[in-house]
Amino acid sequence: MAAVDPLGPTADVGLLSPVWAAGTVAETTSDRAVLGHLLEVEAAWVDVLARRGLASAAEAEQVRAACDPAEYDPAAIARAAQGGGNPLIPTLRALRTRLPAGAAATVHLGATSQDVVDTALMLMVARTARDLTADLRAAVGALSRLALTHRTTPMVARSLTQHSLPSTFGLRAATWLDGLAQATRRLERATSDLPIQWGGAAGTLASLAGHVERARRAGGLADEVTAFDLVEDLAAELGLSAPPAPWNTNRMAVTGVAAALADVVSACGRIANDVLIAARIEIGELSEPTAPGRGGSSAMPHKQNPVLSVLVRSAALSAPGALAQVHTAAGAADDDRPSGAWHAEWPALRQLLRLAGGAAALTHELTAGLRVDEDRMRQNLGRTGPALVSERLMAELAPVIDAAAGRPGAGRDAIHTVVDDALAGRGEFGALLRAAVPASVGDDRLAELCDPAGYTGEAAALVDRIVAAHADLTAD
Amino acid sequence: MAAVDPLGPTADVGLLSPVWAAGTVAETTSDRAVLGHLLEVEAAWVDVLARRGLASAAEAEQVRAACDPAEYDPAAIARAAQGGGNPLIPTLRALRTRLPAGAAATVHLGATSQDVVDTALMLMVARTARDLTADLRAAVGALSRLALTHRTTPMVARSLTQHSLPSTFGLRAATWLDGLAQATRRLERATSDLPIQWGGAAGTLASLAGHVERARRAGGLADEVTAFDLVEDLAAELGLSAPPAPWNTNRMAVTGVAAALADVVSACGRIANDVLIAARIEIGELSEPTAPGRGGSSAMPHKQNPVLSVLVRSAALSAPGALAQVHTAAGAADDDRPSGAWHAEWPALRQLLRLAGGAAALTHELTAGLRVDEDRMRQNLGRTGPALVSERLMAELAPVIDAAAGRPGAGRDAIHTVVDDALAGRGEFGALLRAAVPASVGDDRLAELCDPAGYTGEAAALVDRIVAAHADLTAD
Amino acid sequence: MAAVDPLGPTADVGLLSPVWAAGTVAETTSDRAVLGHLLEVEAAWVDVLARRGLASAAEAEQVRAACDPAEYDPAAIARAAQGGGNPLIPTLRALRTRLPAGAAATVHLGATSQDVVDTALMLMVARTARDLTADLRAAVGALSRLALTHRTTPMVARSLTQHSLPSTFGLRAATWLDGLAQATRRLERATSDLPIQWGGAAGTLASLAGHVERARRAGGLADEVTAFDLVEDLAAELGLSAPPAPWNTNRMAVTGVAAALADVVSACGRIANDVLIAARIEIGELSEPTAPGRGGSSAMPHKQNPVLSVLVRSAALSAPGALAQVHTAAGAADDDRPSGAWHAEWPALRQLLRLAGGAAALTHELTAGLRVDEDRMRQNLGRTGPALVSERLMAELAPVIDAAAGRPGAGRDAIHTVVDDALAGRGEFGALLRAAVPASVGDDRLAELCDPAGYTGEAAALVDRIVAAHADLTAD
Amino acid sequence: MAAVDPLGPTADVGLLSPVWAAGTVAETTSDRAVLGHLLEVEAAWVDVLARRGLASAAEAEQVRAACDPAEYDPAAIARAAQGGGNPLIPTLRALRTRLPAGAAATVHLGATSQDVVDTALMLMVARTARDLTADLRAAVGALSRLALTHRTTPMVARSLTQHSLPSTFGLRAATWLDGLAQATRRLERATSDLPIQWGGAAGTLASLAGHVERARRAGGLADEVTAFDLVEDLAAELGLSAPPAPWNTNRMAVTGVAAALADVVSACGRIANDVLIAARIEIGELSEPTAPGRGGSSAMPHKQNPVLSVLVRSAALSAPGALAQVHTAAGAADDDRPSGAWHAEWPALRQLLRLAGGAAALTHELTAGLRVDEDRMRQNLGRTGPALVSERLMAELAPVIDAAAGRPGAGRDAIHTVVDDALAGRGEFGALLRAAVPASVGDDRLAELCDPAGYTGEAAALVDRIVAAHADLTAD
Repeated sequence: MAAVDPLGPTADVGLLSPVWAAGTVAETTSDRAVLGHLLEVEAAWVDVLARRGLASAAEAEQVRAACDPAEYDPAAIARAAQGGGNPLIPTLRALRTRLPAGAAATVHLGATSQDVVDTALMLMVARTARDLTADLRAAVGALSRLALTHRTTPMVARSLTQHSLPSTFGLRAATWLDGLAQATRRLERATSDLPIQWGGAAGTLASLAGHVERARRAGGLADEVTAFDLVEDLAAELGLSAPPAPWNTNRMAVTGVAAALADVVSACGRIANDVLIAARIEIGELSEPTAPGRGGSSAMPHKQNPVLSVLVRSAALSAPGALAQVHTAAGAADDDRPSGAWHAEWPALRQLLRLAGGAAALTHELTAGLRVDEDRMRQNLGRTGPALVSERLMAELAPVIDAAAGRPGAGRDAIHTVVDDALAGRGEFGALLRAAVPASVGDDRLAELCDPAGYTGEAAALVDRIVAAHADLTAD
Repeated sequence: MAAVDPLGPTADVGLLSPVWAAGTVAETTSDRAVLGHLLEVEAAWVDVLARRGLASAAEAEQVRAACDPAEYDPAAIARAAQGGGNPLIPTLRALRTRLPAGAAATVHLGATSQDVVDTALMLMVARTARDLTADLRAAVGALSRLALTHRTTPMVARSLTQHSLPSTFGLRAATWLDGLAQATRRLERATSDLPIQWGGAAGTLASLAGHVERARRAGGLADEVTAFDLVEDLAAELGLSAPPAPWNTNRMAVTGVAAALADVVSACGRIANDVLIAARIEIGELSEPTAPGRGGSSAMPHKQNPVLSVLVRSAALSAPGALAQVHTAAGAADDDRPSGAWHAEWPALRQLLRLAGGAAALTHELTAGLRVDEDRMRQNLGRTGPALVSERLMAELAPVIDAAAGRPGAGRDAIHTVVDDALAGRGEFGALLRAAVPASVGDDRLAELCDPAGYTGEAAALVDRIVAAHADLTAD
Repeated sequence: MAAVDPLGPTADVGLLSPVWAAGTVAETTSDRAVLGHLLEVEAAWVDVLARRGLASAAEAEQVRAACDPAEYDPAAIARAAQGGGNPLIPTLRALRTRLPAGAAATVHLGATSQDVVDTALMLMVARTARDLTADLRAAVGALSRLALTHRTTPMVARSLTQHSLPSTFGLRAATWLDGLAQATRRLERATSDLPIQWGGAAGTLASLAGHVERARRAGGLADEVTAFDLVEDLAAELGLSAPPAPWNTNRMAVTGVAAALADVVSACGRIANDVLIAARIEIGELSEPTAPGRGGSSAMPHKQNPVLSVLVRSAALSAPGALAQVHTAAGAADDDRPSGAWHAEWPALRQLLRLAGGAAALTHELTAGLRVDEDRMRQNLGRTGPALVSERLMAELAPVIDAAAGRPGAGRDAIHTVVDDALAGRGEFGALLRAAVPASVGDDRLAELCDPAGYTGEAAALVDRIVAAHADLTAD
Repeated sequence: MAAVDPLGPTADVGLLSPVWAAGTVAETTSDRAVLGHLLEVEAAWVDVLARRGLASAAEAEQVRAACDPAEYDPAAIARAAQGGGNPLIPTLRALRTRLPAGAAATVHLGATSQDVVDTALMLMVARTARDLTADLRAAVGALSRLALTHRTTPMVARSLTQHSLPSTFGLRAATWLDGLAQATRRLERATSDLPIQWGGAAGTLASLAGHVERARRAGGLADEVTAFDLVEDLAAELGLSAPPAPWNTNRMAVTGVAAALADVVSACGRIANDVLIAARIEIGELSEPTAPGRGGSSAMPHKQNPVLSVLVRSAALSAPGALAQVHTAAGAADDDRPSGAWHAEWPALRQLLRLAGGAAALTHELTAGLRVDEDRMRQNLGRTGPALVSERLMAELAPVIDAAAGRPGAGRDAIHTVVDDALAGRGEFGALLRAAVPASVGDDRLAELCDPAGYTGEAAALVDRIVAAHADLTAD
């Protein structure tokens, strides 16, 4: 029987990374995609050269035709990359073997490996960011709807795991939204203006400038054209921006993207943590959307695992290490091409893209279908009883008791006694409170004061403020 | 003999952290400073309450008077902080014991520990950022001067530690500048609008809203005044901003600052790495400024250690771990006050402030006094000989040889042979080249082409572009 | 009113680190303690020299007398450390000013800063490890008792937050024990044989060997005595071991300790996570020991915060970043004294000691007083109903049904139908099951099979195996 | 033209990770290998069941035949893994579709996903460790030879990048050896006794114990056979060990391996750092072995890049982040199967294996062929002149001058003056020294004292001690 699958012995397909293996990010960041971006940069560069007269149209066409990544063997290139330390060298070698001598000499003119690798990675970021921000905006939209729908749905707030005060699920969803929207903005800003990196072997553009000068001397170029113009052409061709200078050892472009990606993962992780808590059977306030193949357990049919949140949480536990790696590399850069620091950056940046891409997609799915059990929320809110609003009782009733007793502090003491007695089982809270409060405060008022659902402060207004603050993200 | 020093048995003063122990950041981030910020927030809050009529002017004055951090015992507070998990609880307890009953009841009205701790940490960031950005701008200024002064000073570029092509020291300094200026901008943006955190125990502002409502009922407040107005008052009082909502579990405010601080450290680290390489006696292109007490070795009087760079590099090796800690914490946030994640954030954020503060101060000192040895730069540039510009020789001379030989590729082969023969010692480069090149290319032109200092491409223009791009940072 | 506290403006006392600020580790790792260790190493070295005749007894006495750390100003030393990059240089300078010329010349003979700093840090590790392992062994003992006491206490097991199968609390405690005991062993092994570091400025022992040789020539030393003998003397004097060679740039001694400390924190963190879950009011299976000043909330008297676990968890979120810093530094070592990597190691190693020391002490307190609510455990176990043991019902009953139906697979289908119907509310589990199972299986047997407490497998045996495997740790 | 390569759109082959992409570790840790290990565990378990009579021999054979990983589609499995959160679930599903009903029911009997995944990862570690330790031992052997060959080859020692004292290259190589050998021992210890993880869905072995009990009841098993016996059988079958208990949430087995792998990378990184420094053209003391495809630059034929060291250094900058991820995950474990922490561990552990595997292979290649330029070492040693041995001159000559001058301290002053004058160019060192030293010290003695090669202390003895300490590692 023939093998089902033709992967070679060294291939990974995300088997150990379920958080991103099933998403589009697996495709936009694969080695095949990286290889495609390397070739795309080479082809775009020859196009630029041809438009400026430094290459012929035929050469540009030949290069473009030879740049189909499906024609290359990524595994062989990966192995060969060890020779010079980066994948562009063997890619370029393989490309040149597919070209006539003229085009082979023209391709990569004035460029260096790092130019192509850095620019290709920026392309990967740009392409991946599209799907990523789409998922993030969709999740922000879903959270806005959740927050507004549950604007006044009572739910207990928890501090250090313990019940603290009443709140609403709308506010909880709004704070998720606030964090995720801020992360979305940061990612959009960090990826809105991704720069190409282009400077030649020393970052001086010397070789390119020489070619430009010779072309000017030969009359093929206008006098005012400089190497910088060609760099700008390339940026335009690739849909990236042209920075003032190469950034071969100034890695701020990379750390900026990396930090924004880590923010996305952290913001998603914080949502997942809450869902994991709320999905516990003993709490039961939230459950994940069901879908074929999601979260079921064949061995234990009674179980519905909150798999989306589990995987998002796994990403949140993973991204900080990758971010540290990017920063360690940026801070270890030396000379005019770093001796190892540059190389340590690539897989970490991709890892962050994958974690953020996976987390965003799953968080979109999670927030779009999250199931809310208002009854369980109300039931849990009631567990602590009126002690939960003792802060309010103190503020409202202590002055009344003080006045009646003619002693400042009498109210504070009395309320404390009620709470302590009730917690100690020396009576029912309502009755103890009734006995401690002057009759001038009627039974209805007491009941109103004791109702946790009535003590949610500005929760609803906060929902509105947060939703309004991020309305632009979900406008279209 | 009496003890020289009254520190208690548990105090740290930066003995193991020379990178920041001697700087102002040691003062602006000390436990004493943190305690001061905690008390400052409490005092400002009572001021706000008093101005709005929720506290008396006398109470505000009493609280303000009791908030001198020098009156408190930070060590005792630190120990007691273990009881509730944060330092505000014992600080508040100690503050209340210094107050009459009325003021004691009013202080911290409607607030929760996290409000005060988070806001105090933002104050610490804001105060520290002032010195920090001043140092960064000064370093950017120094680098601009260095870059312009050495705009055309020839220096070899290095790739993976090896000589690659000629460049200039001005361009090197400009790329340092480019990275540091970008990091400076990020830090300024991240700290330009630091938010207070204020929401009460559940983030709903319930207690404060209750007080406001009672005051409105009692006629002490205009009808349109809400809890949000008081929050805005507090932000104004502290010189921070008022965000749409509390961010008790949305830690984007913290991760944003942390990432910018890590960028500062990485940008400084990259400069230090280069200085450490160039300060080696065998290279000798750069040396650190000398100053009393800097870098000397009593045991080895011939040694001048590049201590500034050593310490900056130590910061660059340290910041990524702290950044990872902040992000791990942000992604582990849960409920309405995190159960440990919040607590893990504080020391890591401070650590990043200290590392960035120390690195910025030392980088300022380093760049302001950096000594440049142009002779050694030129001497090192000459080590590889004309082989260093073989790229240029190939581009300029191969076509001429091709034409003379009537065979495309003849030039390429000839130049390769010259380089190989010269490297193998089979002749002197100049003579070999002369023999390979048609006489139509004169001796002067050959010499010109072989001069590495003449092959620095757009280095000078790049210096100008980078300096111009960041001129605003050094404008005043 | 006079200041209560004489700390200078730059001192830290753990205000932002409640996990360790109140423990003995705050004392054994303070800057005061570090300074003490630096001086202790210098004093011990002169003792060794004196015993070997390379210093006079009077000099040794003078040095010893001048080495009281209380006589030094750590803050001034910390600031001065920036000059040479490490704290030993100004410490030694201050020490020499306290000595007559002879002793001043003899102190530090043949040594270098790194020798003293590295050895002092090993002393700090050794001294701190004593308390630390005592706490760990005590916690292991407490967990053994918990595991045995609750060997058969039924409790639900949870997988991905959901109920999976019945288990016992004894097994849960035993797995905590297993992890903590393994971490304890690793720490004991990593700290059982801590080496001094001693090699002189280049790690060649050249200066010391010169002194030894001159002493031999002068007849003051036996011919066979070498520098290595003095190094061994010093190790013995300090209670450390003498390695084959200096390890100035081979940091395996440090990474080994760091990894073991991180293991301790992780093992403690895993316990804290479980307590935090179980202490939620909705679950209520475990609660932390109460103690004065622990976990109470003045604002919310109904709350008992699981502060011990919160703080331990904060340590677990912090240690990985510090461990990464140690490893980054170890992997960045260069030359014969690293240019920054060495310096980055010190605070990270101390941070790990503090986190492990704090986590161990709090885990000891937590495990010694953990309160177990068997009723809530049983109640929670019952929530899922017999569906929880569907695995068992399938294994035991499916074959019977198959046999009765004369069709393989009939039993599997029938049990699945029972579970699905019960979960969907189409009947009560017991009745549905009874109807599906042949009468040959009696009612009693059915009830027995449905009792979750009866399906805990080898839980009790596993408790015994784990307790036995680590009995030696709690033997004395 | 047909596609050269059949990889799907999501496959990685190490294109961004040249440090390991070309080594055997790429094969032993690929997704294909992981899948193979998952299937191997399932097959081994049915073998165990069959030998104990809980499965038929035919079933075991059918399962074994269906467990060829080449028959499965890893990409489809990876995508499907998102459904349940781990790759075993879809693998098992795919396996069962290849089996007759009986074998399909028997396979995985009593096991849970985590048992198979954890055990498979331990198999991956075990198999990878074989190659890894072989490379490490070979590198240790090469370093021993280098150290002994250059036992007395003079070389300058450097501290904080500056010349400190004379040393030997043999000692440098020996300290590399010392670190690498210690790391090798740790890895061998950490991987010598890797445990299987086997406990069923709750870690209680309940399901398996039930099957065993039923088999005993049915007379198919001896009375004393327990579930533990089968677990031990499985361990034996797989060549792993059987621990006292499952370690589903006690991740010490994983952190122990991870720390040892990180040690390997750090130890290799430290060697690479030194080679990168020494390979600079201005220093020129060491160069990497040349090999076809290694380190050449097509654009700059004069360059030989130290690619091995560059890549090893990239690993050293990457491993700490992965180690932090493993520890973060271990410390975040909760319940009886962690809700995300477990999942975050897999890729980080594999990443460490790959980094260590790649670093070890390249370090083996590097150390086996390292080229040493003794002339450049001697030349660099001479750069500082006799000032380099001023420590020795002080020790040997100051007493003589003191005696002649009749004033203690006269010698110290005189030598300092000589050094200062020489460094300031106020005379030649030798002449200045001759003038300062009494004639009783002859010219030959003065020359001898000034020769740096004569002041290497115990360097040769240290080489012998280190080589002897690790001779066992290279014995066979």
